[in-house]
Amino acid sequence: MKNKFYKYLQELQNNITSKLEEIDGVAKFREDIWERKQGGGGKTRIIENGAVFEKGGVNISSVYGSLSSEMQRYFKVGDVDFFACGLSLVIHPKNPMVPTVHANYRYFEMYDKTGKIIDQWFGGGQDLTPYYLFEEDAKHFHQLCKKACDKHNSTFYPKFKKQCDDYFWNSHREEARGIGGLFFDYCKPSEEMSLENWYHFVTEVGNSFLKAYTPIVEKRKKLDYSQANRTWQEIRCGRYAEFNLLLDKGTLFGLKTNGRIESILMSLPPHVQWIYDYYPVKNSKEESLLKVLAHPKDWV
Amino acid sequence: MKNKFYKYLQELQNNITSKLEEIDGVAKFREDIWERKQGGGGKTRIIENGAVFEKGGVNISSVYGSLSSEMQRYFKVGDVDFFACGLSLVIHPKNPMVPTVHANYRYFEMYDKTGKIIDQWFGGGQDLTPYYLFEEDAKHFHQLCKKACDKHNSTFYPKFKKQCDDYFWNSHREEARGIGGLFFDYCKPSEEMSLENWYHFVTEVGNSFLKAYTPIVEKRKKLDYSQANRTWQEIRCGRYAEFNLLLDKGTLFGLKTNGRIESILMSLPPHVQWIYDYYPVKNSKEESLLKVLAHPKDWV
Repeated sequence: MKNKFYKYLQELQNNITSKLEEIDGVAKFREDIWERKQGGGGKTRIIENGAVFEKGGVNISSVYGSLSSEMQRYFKVGDVDFFACGLSLVIHPKNPMVPTVHANYRYFEMYDKTGKIIDQWFGGGQDLTPYYLFEEDAKHFHQLCKKACDKHNSTFYPKFKKQCDDYFWNSHREEARGIGGLFFDYCKPSEEMSLENWYHFVTEVGNSFLKAYTPIVEKRKKLDYSQANRTWQEIRCGRYAEFNLLLDKGTLFGLKTNGRIESILMSLPPHVQWIYDYYPVKNSKEESLLKVLAHPKDWV
Repeated sequence: MKNKFYKYLQELQNNITSKLEEIDGVAKFREDIWERKQGGGGKTRIIENGAVFEKGGVNISSVYGSLSSEMQRYFKVGDVDFFACGLSLVIHPKNPMVPTVHANYRYFEMYDKTGKIIDQWFGGGQDLTPYYLFEEDAKHFHQLCKKACDKHNSTFYPKFKKQCDDYFWNSHREEARGIGGLFFDYCKPSEEMSLENWYHFVTEVGNSFLKAYTPIVEKRKKLDYSQANRTWQEIRCGRYAEFNLLLDKGTLFGLKTNGRIESILMSLPPHVQWIYDYYPVKNSKEESLLKVLAHPKDWV
């Protein structure tokens, strides 16, 4: 399974980066291949200062070894070995009318000291962070998420949509990071879903990514915007950075377990502003976004 | 002691804000007075978009009540009452040649349920974060820190200087946030130092703040700078934000214990950039700063 899934992730990385380059038309991804001293490594691909994408990363990694004590405490296990692979992406567009997107698809195995698998699961998701809300874009994104889920189990979309809203919640601000999507974790083989079935589900979601995101980019990338729109985008990017640095488990564990700093923090937005006690003008488009973020909505 | 020290902090806030307004010449501090539902409140003073200071806050607060379970775990105590007051300031200048400064002076009391004091201590410090390093400025700042310490105990400066270097360490980057200063905590009455003596020490440090910082501002505020200097400042401000959101205990506890968000996060820089895998040109002024930050120096 681990080889099959990592092969899938490599293909997905190629598909996503070549489609995003095509949309951007100017910038190309640069690639950094890195190795992990304790086992494994990854391929980080970064796009910067494009016509459409100001900063983005589409990274894959496949790492293994003995589980760090930090992670042993987190998973409440003893001294075991592990394998983990995943694709992580964050795309920050230049035009504030185009939303930021994040996605992650991952697979984890744990072994006892004889090498026997003692646990294995898939996790991941994808979510959208608009700066200006176009309801039809939110609906489109969620519809594609739902479609991928419904092919496997009709309970998945409502469940994973709620988990996404719960996870990407900036508790100190009492607002969502964005308008959500899907979030799932610990997807383990059971009577209803074999590991193979979970593989088909996760790759279905991975395959839905470009169809869910790129039509929105194509529709919004040519819209006019003002310096005030950019300022609002940068203020909202401050909230994005707050979530990633204060609350995101992937980021915090990556940093605590000596992950590759630049690959982890590539998720941070290119430009951020923090203005004291900022609140947008009443009845503005900016305020209407805040109202939606305060109370996650059903989009389909 | 608590009334005497809070009275001192109120005067110090007035002195610092009026001196900084005088230096800025354009912007004035705005004041937000807030109350804490569970007891106490504070006075937040913010300056923004000045001629010299792009963003800064000089805040005081005095809060009391029963210690939250989060803080009980942190202090390893049971269900006790507390009083805490402090002044916190962060000043982010516009000109990248002028350093950012941070200072904090605080006093804490803990009571059993009959109201008897069971513990009490002072804490605080002050530290400098330059974007371009002028060695004479670093020496001046540290000399003033040392002078304030030496009046009380010749072991204080080396001890509190080291604690500052250790505390403001961005471990994931393996670099200091800035060039340090002083950091002290749990300064409790002992045979050598009565609580009254600690009061005199902490207020001595508080009184040294303007003399340590403002001559540097006056000297550097008129220097020319380029857009490239600003970009470097914004990149370094990204590291400042990383420290405050990932590691700073004051920030993290403030957020976890429902402190006033805007007063806590006023410390975040006004403009930040995150560029993937950025490293300055060899032998540049930017690189020479990084070399100093990788190995905290003795400045006096």
